[in-house]
Amino acid sequence: MPLSGFPEWLPPQRMIEQYVLDRIRSTFELYGFAPLDTRAVEPIDQLLRKGETSKEVYLLRRLQEDADSRGEETLGLHFDLTVPFARFVLENAGKLVFPFRRYQIQKVWRGERPQDGRYREFLQADIDVVDRDTLPFHYDTEMPLVILDALRGTPVPPLRVRVNNRKLCEGFYRGLGLSGADEVLRIMDKLDKNGPDAVTSQLVSSVGASEAQARACLDLAGISSADASFADRVRALGVTDPLLDEGLDELVQVLDAAFEAERGHVVADLSIARGLDYYTGTVYETFMQGYESYGSICSGGRYENLASSAKERFPGVGISIGVSRMLGVLFGHQALAVSRAVPTCVLVALIDEEHRSSAQRIAAALRGRGIATEVSPSAAKYGKQIRFAERRGIPYVWFPGADGAPDSVKDIRSGKQDEADAEVWEPPAEDRLPLITGA
Amino acid sequence: MPLSGFPEWLPPQRMIEQYVLDRIRSTFELYGFAPLDTRAVEPIDQLLRKGETSKEVYLLRRLQEDADSRGEETLGLHFDLTVPFARFVLENAGKLVFPFRRYQIQKVWRGERPQDGRYREFLQADIDVVDRDTLPFHYDTEMPLVILDALRGTPVPPLRVRVNNRKLCEGFYRGLGLSGADEVLRIMDKLDKNGPDAVTSQLVSSVGASEAQARACLDLAGISSADASFADRVRALGVTDPLLDEGLDELVQVLDAAFEAERGHVVADLSIARGLDYYTGTVYETFMQGYESYGSICSGGRYENLASSAKERFPGVGISIGVSRMLGVLFGHQALAVSRAVPTCVLVALIDEEHRSSAQRIAAALRGRGIATEVSPSAAKYGKQIRFAERRGIPYVWFPGADGAPDSVKDIRSGKQDEADAEVWEPPAEDRLPLITGA
Repeated sequence: MPLSGFPEWLPPQRMIEQYVLDRIRSTFELYGFAPLDTRAVEPIDQLLRKGETSKEVYLLRRLQEDADSRGEETLGLHFDLTVPFARFVLENAGKLVFPFRRYQIQKVWRGERPQDGRYREFLQADIDVVDRDTLPFHYDTEMPLVILDALRGTPVPPLRVRVNNRKLCEGFYRGLGLSGADEVLRIMDKLDKNGPDAVTSQLVSSVGASEAQARACLDLAGISSADASFADRVRALGVTDPLLDEGLDELVQVLDAAFEAERGHVVADLSIARGLDYYTGTVYETFMQGYESYGSICSGGRYENLASSAKERFPGVGISIGVSRMLGVLFGHQALAVSRAVPTCVLVALIDEEHRSSAQRIAAALRGRGIATEVSPSAAKYGKQIRFAERRGIPYVWFPGADGAPDSVKDIRSGKQDEADAEVWEPPAEDRLPLITGA
Repeated sequence: MPLSGFPEWLPPQRMIEQYVLDRIRSTFELYGFAPLDTRAVEPIDQLLRKGETSKEVYLLRRLQEDADSRGEETLGLHFDLTVPFARFVLENAGKLVFPFRRYQIQKVWRGERPQDGRYREFLQADIDVVDRDTLPFHYDTEMPLVILDALRGTPVPPLRVRVNNRKLCEGFYRGLGLSGADEVLRIMDKLDKNGPDAVTSQLVSSVGASEAQARACLDLAGISSADASFADRVRALGVTDPLLDEGLDELVQVLDAAFEAERGHVVADLSIARGLDYYTGTVYETFMQGYESYGSICSGGRYENLASSAKERFPGVGISIGVSRMLGVLFGHQALAVSRAVPTCVLVALIDEEHRSSAQRIAAALRGRGIATEVSPSAAKYGKQIRFAERRGIPYVWFPGADGAPDSVKDIRSGKQDEADAEVWEPPAEDRLPLITGA
């Protein structure tokens, strides 16, 4: 029985997912991010240290727990990859070289109520850079560019990264004379969901904002631009504060760097807030063009204090592709397709069971040149063997020659059949691997 | 704090693991296995259906459990990939085509007591083939060949797959006049651990064996051969039974198929039992040559009834590489090495911060040809920038030419520096990717 919130793809969908993951990973490596894989569990106090999602955690217990188990640490499944990464950095700081760039592609879990229909298990692909004591700001400008590069050329629709900066918002609220910036951010985060009237009355009742202050917060959230011009519109609101200036300067840097390499794909959007508590500056959300209503599929930001102990501090910046979420939306719209249901390019037909080992030798020769090959499961009539290939989308059937006659290979889509030698034959380049396309 | 039983590798080790996983996966695909990834959790009754390991399961509960949660199904983390695969096949039988070949590379969890020092989280790489109603035996002969192919050419030491057949053993015990074959198998499984004397007295006390019957069981377990000659030695023991004959015939087929392609790497070993209850015929264990005492790193077998409902049956055969276990042993012996600690091949040096965007353009040109490139984190003195590369094992530092002079690239191992153009320069093939070697 399927379990609500635990998506499972059929093999063709998993082939598409693998293809997208391969592209993501090879791009991360091209930018010098080193691979990391952390354990799925953390002590519960680690998990509850930070972030709004901490309430939706799965805790573990051993089926065989007994008197001996008392005093064992309570473990929970990680709900993101940033908190485990911060723990790993603190734990292994002496063995790493900084600045440390790593990527991490793993499942995460959230202990949501099954009836809420949210994902309870999903795959994330994260990059982060951390450094000791301070981390140069230029890394904040790099994150969206890596993500855009990773998914360009895949059949995933074009992305738009929306960027904001918490210093900018907090400085603006302070400059306005509002206290409780965290609470203002939390209220503003629900603007999309609750609408301007509800947000205004919450600002008035929760943080004691005047009508004018509330209107200024809404004006700020209404500003967006695909270049650095947002900064002038913010300044035109007439609020001044040193932290606001710092945030403006940082966000301008992100936009300037993107404007050269990714014009139009990175926009400043001052309504972006992000739920997690640990962000302290830049925040990112990313939307697929045409699928904006499904929410952000790639988020992240700058965190100054997440990886910190009493003695050391490793500020970082990172971004995380919600792979399951992104593909779940696209699968739901039949927006992605794959040309066959198996990796196999060639099926070697069998004349009779006695010829299985010579068929295996043909298969081995093809595999030796990287051509995925299966031998027919049985020596059924050739028509049945061809149907085996057809049902899986395998494009070629190989017929071993009988009694010294040459082998031949048939493209079962066109029906074209040619003599072939397993030691040298090559399929057309586009048939070698399953082809992933937008549907 | 490291958690006992939850291994975590540093990035260089993870790079080695990724390399091994890539080899395994591409080989699985060359043989036509389709990718599958199942959820990490199963309802507890699924997990407790089969297998000795069922006692060492992690159960989940939501931190936020409340009155509404009563009646939610109890979920546990899967302890292998075969049980979830069997469940997936039954659940999706109408959407799959049979015989169905799939691979699955995922973590599994066992709720061991922390003080026992066993792995509680580890990575497995499985292949299985299932068919409706019956599955031809030739798939049993294919499994070890795929595994040997997958790890050949990697720095993992040569493997030896030891194969046995439960029909052979059960038929032999029955032909001997012993009843309770399952119990005999369980006792014989501990032969290595408990020694022949303890096993003899257990056979006498537990299943009422005579001294002669116990001796015959030990004689059988003492037989092994790298070709089909084991069968004559079994027959020389003078026991006859139709199930014994069937098992002998099957095991001979495995050895014959392997003898052609993998002489010496597959041996019949009649002492192999395997702990899990669901195996019904062929069983495999695999040892790294020189590391035999660390136990099997790749196991599996034939299961006739695992994927069965009241109406349908999908017999299967599969094998599973214990990736964490295999690499854990080799890492422990410093037996594997990687040429650098990051994917990066080239570091682009920075003259000053103002030249960061032109350095980014150089990096983009190199990445465009698949050359992993980072830009220097800061415009420190060149000596410091070169040390940044050295500490990570990055082989090349790129110096952008000042004032229209051409760029140059320096191999920092040899000190050799040459003029270079980012649009065409290629590193030597062996420097393109980190090199994984036996240490």
